[in-house]
Amino acid sequence: MLIVKTPEEVFEIINSVFGERMETEEVSLSDALGRVLSEDVCSTEHVPGFDRSTVDGYAVKASDTFGCSDSIPVVLSLLDEIRMGEEASECLKPGEAAYIPTGGELPKGADGVLMVEYSELYGDGTVGVLCPVSPGENVIFRGDDIRTGERLLSKGSVLNTAQIGALAAIGKTNVPVKKKLSVGILSTGDELVPSSDVPGPGQVRDVNSRMLESFVIGNYAEAVCYGIIRDDKEEIGRTLDIALSECDLVLISGGSSAGLKDTTAKIIEERGELLFHGIAMKPGKPTILGNAGGKPVMGLPGHPGAAFFVAQLFVTALLDRLYGRKQSEFPVKAVLSERVPSNHGRAQYVGVSLREENGILFADPVHSKSGLITTIARVCGYFAIDRDREGLEKGEEIEVWRFSI
Amino acid sequence: MLIVKTPEEVFEIINSVFGERMETEEVSLSDALGRVLSEDVCSTEHVPGFDRSTVDGYAVKASDTFGCSDSIPVVLSLLDEIRMGEEASECLKPGEAAYIPTGGELPKGADGVLMVEYSELYGDGTVGVLCPVSPGENVIFRGDDIRTGERLLSKGSVLNTAQIGALAAIGKTNVPVKKKLSVGILSTGDELVPSSDVPGPGQVRDVNSRMLESFVIGNYAEAVCYGIIRDDKEEIGRTLDIALSECDLVLISGGSSAGLKDTTAKIIEERGELLFHGIAMKPGKPTILGNAGGKPVMGLPGHPGAAFFVAQLFVTALLDRLYGRKQSEFPVKAVLSERVPSNHGRAQYVGVSLREENGILFADPVHSKSGLITTIARVCGYFAIDRDREGLEKGEEIEVWRFSI
Repeated sequence: MLIVKTPEEVFEIINSVFGERMETEEVSLSDALGRVLSEDVCSTEHVPGFDRSTVDGYAVKASDTFGCSDSIPVVLSLLDEIRMGEEASECLKPGEAAYIPTGGELPKGADGVLMVEYSELYGDGTVGVLCPVSPGENVIFRGDDIRTGERLLSKGSVLNTAQIGALAAIGKTNVPVKKKLSVGILSTGDELVPSSDVPGPGQVRDVNSRMLESFVIGNYAEAVCYGIIRDDKEEIGRTLDIALSECDLVLISGGSSAGLKDTTAKIIEERGELLFHGIAMKPGKPTILGNAGGKPVMGLPGHPGAAFFVAQLFVTALLDRLYGRKQSEFPVKAVLSERVPSNHGRAQYVGVSLREENGILFADPVHSKSGLITTIARVCGYFAIDRDREGLEKGEEIEVWRFSI
Repeated sequence: MLIVKTPEEVFEIINSVFGERMETEEVSLSDALGRVLSEDVCSTEHVPGFDRSTVDGYAVKASDTFGCSDSIPVVLSLLDEIRMGEEASECLKPGEAAYIPTGGELPKGADGVLMVEYSELYGDGTVGVLCPVSPGENVIFRGDDIRTGERLLSKGSVLNTAQIGALAAIGKTNVPVKKKLSVGILSTGDELVPSSDVPGPGQVRDVNSRMLESFVIGNYAEAVCYGIIRDDKEEIGRTLDIALSECDLVLISGGSSAGLKDTTAKIIEERGELLFHGIAMKPGKPTILGNAGGKPVMGLPGHPGAAFFVAQLFVTALLDRLYGRKQSEFPVKAVLSERVPSNHGRAQYVGVSLREENGILFADPVHSKSGLITTIARVCGYFAIDRDREGLEKGEEIEVWRFSI
């Protein structure tokens, strides 16, 4: 009774079933990195607020300089020099020039700046212009950077360094962002012990709690860890109810046993709608998604290696959807360093490390028996093999998607 | 008297002049994302600690199953089933099998697992084997993931999600990492007002403080902002001295005036060695680097657009060096969507946005007059034009380096 979907169908389900969370808050620019803008930001003023020089030189009327050259310089009278951060109060009349530093305010009457390299000071209060200046030359005009009412950033942007700088430039020092999503993390399985413990016979350490926690933190969301839950329907259900009351999204990983997989699906069904049970991909097949009153509940494979791929692909998609995030990633092209067979009839995702040799970028598949986690630690990205391909040949050019977290 | 270097020379200088900072601390895995490992981590045990099944099925002696098929099944007697998290106490004798869940401990005497799909239960305490099992089939042996003494991660790794998972797997729940570097940020210039203020005539907002602060935070370092300092040699020197006593690295941005550029260089020279004054690149030419008793002091251009590129290229290199960080980035290949002229005799760095159309990735250069910051907000990476090329043609394949922060 598995409702198995392709990865593409899973992305569609995520985007059609779940809605964007609308809770917002204001944060200062110092706390804005990685946060998701909750509304468009438009400038409420012209930036820069005045005409500025982009070079050190002399503010001039361009028409005064037409036709001059280093053999026939135009001679202009010098006004007081313009100082940084001060208003250029004197109005430039025909035949006049004023020294202006980079970033200085262009005086009224001037419409261009002569670079200092093309000037000659005569020491008698005049300056020689050795090269004609076009109107607008070496000037950023008022509003050239951004104009009043113009949109700087759109809703859904994930704020980066440059955008934080741009927000500072327009004086938007508090920005409206989506509230951090809260993500509940449950590890299930009778075989699990906390990662700080020494496992006894038949036991293994809980890897997924720490791995998913850091994944959530790296997505600028809040991780709430509910620890290890025994393979018990009541206990898992009780903990899930708490997590659903406290979180926006819940991740249940494990257990590996066939019985438990069904248990998780049943527990989800009792609390809402089971959207699918299984993805036609390797690794990550036993992935489940449910909708509990608008909140996604995802069941991830217990194998850390598989849970890692599911998080990178589908937990990212869930967070994108709930945050209303706009992110675009582009793959790196690389040459496959060895043949990779595949005949699973389902999409296969293969982790790789990248290496440059003689200017060629090679992707080395990282081989891993199902369930191995230490090999995943050497992986920097992955490529996908379509379900209808039987594998890829050594030397083929592939597209590698990098893991950023 | 400018000591101008090429970008390549600047990277060499950074790596030869400055040493790795050795201060370390221990953090829990919950706080380890993005931190730099300060020593190699080796496993102190075998993972997994016992032979595990990778499928749901029957633990068998492989030799018992040789030669069987679905028409001539081998019949084995069933022992008690193996339970997750419990020791497989019964020893398997020839002619016996035991049900085992994925992840369960292989009983002594067994050396392979038959997938449940190739079995037939007869209901009389026996199971039919419809397909031979090879020794080792569907088993992860003790130590297959990692063995005692084997190196899991090497010093200098920037910890990511998968590596944090791998550390949890070996029980390393506290990890030795480099102490966060403390980076002092000074903005200089008489024309600057705090970004929360409305600029008066001739004034502009301080953009670089917030931009560099978020850049430092995104590098998992601590930003210490010293605010806006007037164009005054004494005042800048005094603040720099405080910053040098409190921080591992100091960034002074601005001012744009020629006079101030020299001032910053002089102030650095008075406190140590001026390594260079100017980089043969655009944007970013007026960049300065000094060595004040082993601590780097970098003077960045006042123009936010130029300071952004300098931070992405050279502040990253400084942090890599001080942290002893190993990071490898690989460019994305894209098609240049328009001709970009360049004849500066110096390397030119051009910001781009990326766009996919009919399966082709196009790089659109983002045009920006020097000093514009809002255009930088649309940039997702850059390409470089060598100093000896006169520009690049429309349709050329270029390598785009993405900005991750």
